[in-house]
Amino acid sequence: MTTTTSTAAVTTTASPTSLEVVAPDLAALTRPDFPLLAQTACLGQPLIYLDYAATSQKPRQVLAALQHYYDHDNANVHRGAHQLSARATEGFEAARSKTATFIGAANAREIVFTRNASEAINLVARSWGEANLGPGDEVLLTVMEHHSNLVPWQLLAARTGCVLRHAGLTESGELDLEDLRGQISERTKLVSLVQVSNTLGCLNPIEQVVALAHAAGALVLVDACQSLPHLVVNVAQLGCDFLVGSSHKLCGPTGMGFLWAREALLEAMPPFLGGGEMIQDVYLDHSSWAELPHKFEAGTPAIGEAIGMGAALDYLSAIGLERIHAWEQLLTRQLFARLQAIEGVRILGPTPEQQPDRGALAAFTVDGLHANDIAALLDSAGICIRSGHHCTQPLHRLYGLPGSARASLGFTTTPEEIDRFAEELEGTITFLREHS
Amino acid sequence: MTTTTSTAAVTTTASPTSLEVVAPDLAALTRPDFPLLAQTACLGQPLIYLDYAATSQKPRQVLAALQHYYDHDNANVHRGAHQLSARATEGFEAARSKTATFIGAANAREIVFTRNASEAINLVARSWGEANLGPGDEVLLTVMEHHSNLVPWQLLAARTGCVLRHAGLTESGELDLEDLRGQISERTKLVSLVQVSNTLGCLNPIEQVVALAHAAGALVLVDACQSLPHLVVNVAQLGCDFLVGSSHKLCGPTGMGFLWAREALLEAMPPFLGGGEMIQDVYLDHSSWAELPHKFEAGTPAIGEAIGMGAALDYLSAIGLERIHAWEQLLTRQLFARLQAIEGVRILGPTPEQQPDRGALAAFTVDGLHANDIAALLDSAGICIRSGHHCTQPLHRLYGLPGSARASLGFTTTPEEIDRFAEELEGTITFLREHS
Repeated sequence: MTTTTSTAAVTTTASPTSLEVVAPDLAALTRPDFPLLAQTACLGQPLIYLDYAATSQKPRQVLAALQHYYDHDNANVHRGAHQLSARATEGFEAARSKTATFIGAANAREIVFTRNASEAINLVARSWGEANLGPGDEVLLTVMEHHSNLVPWQLLAARTGCVLRHAGLTESGELDLEDLRGQISERTKLVSLVQVSNTLGCLNPIEQVVALAHAAGALVLVDACQSLPHLVVNVAQLGCDFLVGSSHKLCGPTGMGFLWAREALLEAMPPFLGGGEMIQDVYLDHSSWAELPHKFEAGTPAIGEAIGMGAALDYLSAIGLERIHAWEQLLTRQLFARLQAIEGVRILGPTPEQQPDRGALAAFTVDGLHANDIAALLDSAGICIRSGHHCTQPLHRLYGLPGSARASLGFTTTPEEIDRFAEELEGTITFLREHS
Repeated sequence: MTTTTSTAAVTTTASPTSLEVVAPDLAALTRPDFPLLAQTACLGQPLIYLDYAATSQKPRQVLAALQHYYDHDNANVHRGAHQLSARATEGFEAARSKTATFIGAANAREIVFTRNASEAINLVARSWGEANLGPGDEVLLTVMEHHSNLVPWQLLAARTGCVLRHAGLTESGELDLEDLRGQISERTKLVSLVQVSNTLGCLNPIEQVVALAHAAGALVLVDACQSLPHLVVNVAQLGCDFLVGSSHKLCGPTGMGFLWAREALLEAMPPFLGGGEMIQDVYLDHSSWAELPHKFEAGTPAIGEAIGMGAALDYLSAIGLERIHAWEQLLTRQLFARLQAIEGVRILGPTPEQQPDRGALAAFTVDGLHANDIAALLDSAGICIRSGHHCTQPLHRLYGLPGSARASLGFTTTPEEIDRFAEELEGTITFLREHS
């Protein structure tokens, strides 16, 4: 946890002018594509959305892709003998190829579409986990995991008798790699961890974790929900075995996520859900399974959502994840500088100085004040931040916190929005202190 | 199977003129809302979509609801402290209430959103099934079930040792209620069946099945995918215990379905998928669960899709399911009359004379010809029908058929489209016979 007790307002180290020198102003470039961000909040104030880690906003191009699909090509996929079904199938499978390319997968058969990243993790826990884990086998997680990477393994442990372990944190709020190393043994069958924490914002050293895990014969699952929208994520480079992502955090529609896994792993895994699409031959008493990836996709899939996610990945790729990361690094440094200058603000996780590639968010507490009160007052000023446990209750419990406030950024965030947030936060704190 | 060997073209019993007397022309009323149906196919021919049983088309109102959500209210639900999250949550939960109202559920807590109906059945099989069934317990299905209501139970049987049984058919291709009665015993724990078959088109007597099942202490699950878009479906009236439905067949978006179950059943069922949203308190080694229905909805739900489905249910309700059913009954009689007049055409399932409330579709074979060839030639004339096994392989195997062709109707179908389909089918059959 980073604490600052400075009382003076500090000039931000990254002013709008200096930003333009270092990285292209992606907010200026992209804002016209995001109608939601142009709306006004109550009292005619501009709406300032700083909750990108909860969900991204959607560019016009994604809505246009959805509209085009439903107005021109809508049909069920893989089954039809007609032109609409052929076009729907082509669009749906093109989205799978785009997803594979986006994460550097070897081929599109390795991409399984799910409702969300949570379902993708549950799929691995139910299918791979039940087939491969027994009493005493260990799954190593970390204390910073989102509930989506905790609860599926708890349910699995209850069914199989496998044992859950949790790697801890360093003083700066980063993954304690030495602790993780010490907890890996020949009993470890899987290490499952987040790439960028949605609360600490730390970027975990996946490649090093993979080396440690593989040396012990364990597989590695990466929850990339908070990294995919902000960094180049390449499964070949990471060396991991499973990776999950979420469309709605990637400028795509809700109702869509994906699991990537090595083809050989998917081939060996039994089906998860049963139904149409995932079968080869069905008899009354038994069935055989379709080829990958359809074996894991029972029933009519989220066709429009896949096509929408494909359009979102096209959009992100056209901007370039390197440029997004560079721009958001500047915004993150500005956010930290402004927050660090406010008395009593304590930010969770490493500072940009401690970890330059950290995520574009700051979860924080304010001495003596409740995060919910802060978020509610900011909301009345048109500023949308998150308060609560951010689906990381164990992490908050570890820090002795009931919750925290969190401002999270996207490439559409402007330096002016960060300044306005900081100013309103200072005013909010003053107001709450005076009225408590 | 219904066979007709008549050689003469028969005047349809329901001409456009006579239709208008009996029921409002819903096609004329609603076509302006469906942009897809106004497009032309290859060679400038009008596109005729007769694959509604695979998926429905979407009215402008559904797309407008999606667009409004993404352009004005998009945020994650249930978690935020800000106005966007409040509005998104309100829209999402309103969709749940609309779904409850649409099927006559006691309250919205009984509606669990899923990706599709298949997932809803898998949820029951995994959660209720694993908790309640053991070796020798029986699940009674029917031979007409869609793969989505066969494979989940096969997977469950492999895990628990429960036994699957299958009720048969009458000569007319309807559910053999006597056979079903004879297969129910004190070992029967669940009867799971379709309300309207997607291949036979028969409407099954759910109330009678429920009476038989309940008398033996068994529960009843109804697959309502093919009935919800066409009939008034009311769970209180049916008396069933579980019911599943699919948004994309109901004029709503893909990526959305639902499970309805009696609240007491849902309360007693263990969670299915683990993650955010479905928890109350999470510790590293254990968790407690959220209230209904959230206990069964892990991770960020399909928010936009729920809101889109809500708009679709509004649309259907504004027309009125009684009116839809009356109009489609006329169309179905016309479809059967035209098909029955073509030599060598054999229609699966009961005729409208045998079962006036049967579904608005006709699956058929043509003596000596392949269904795929027929569908492909019709497609080149701009007419979209389905060919294959329609996800009912066991039913087709029972009839000794590799597959069938299927024309399925919606309330946007016009009498002229049915005439044009019949004429093109006659031409196609003549062409294929001459060239085989």
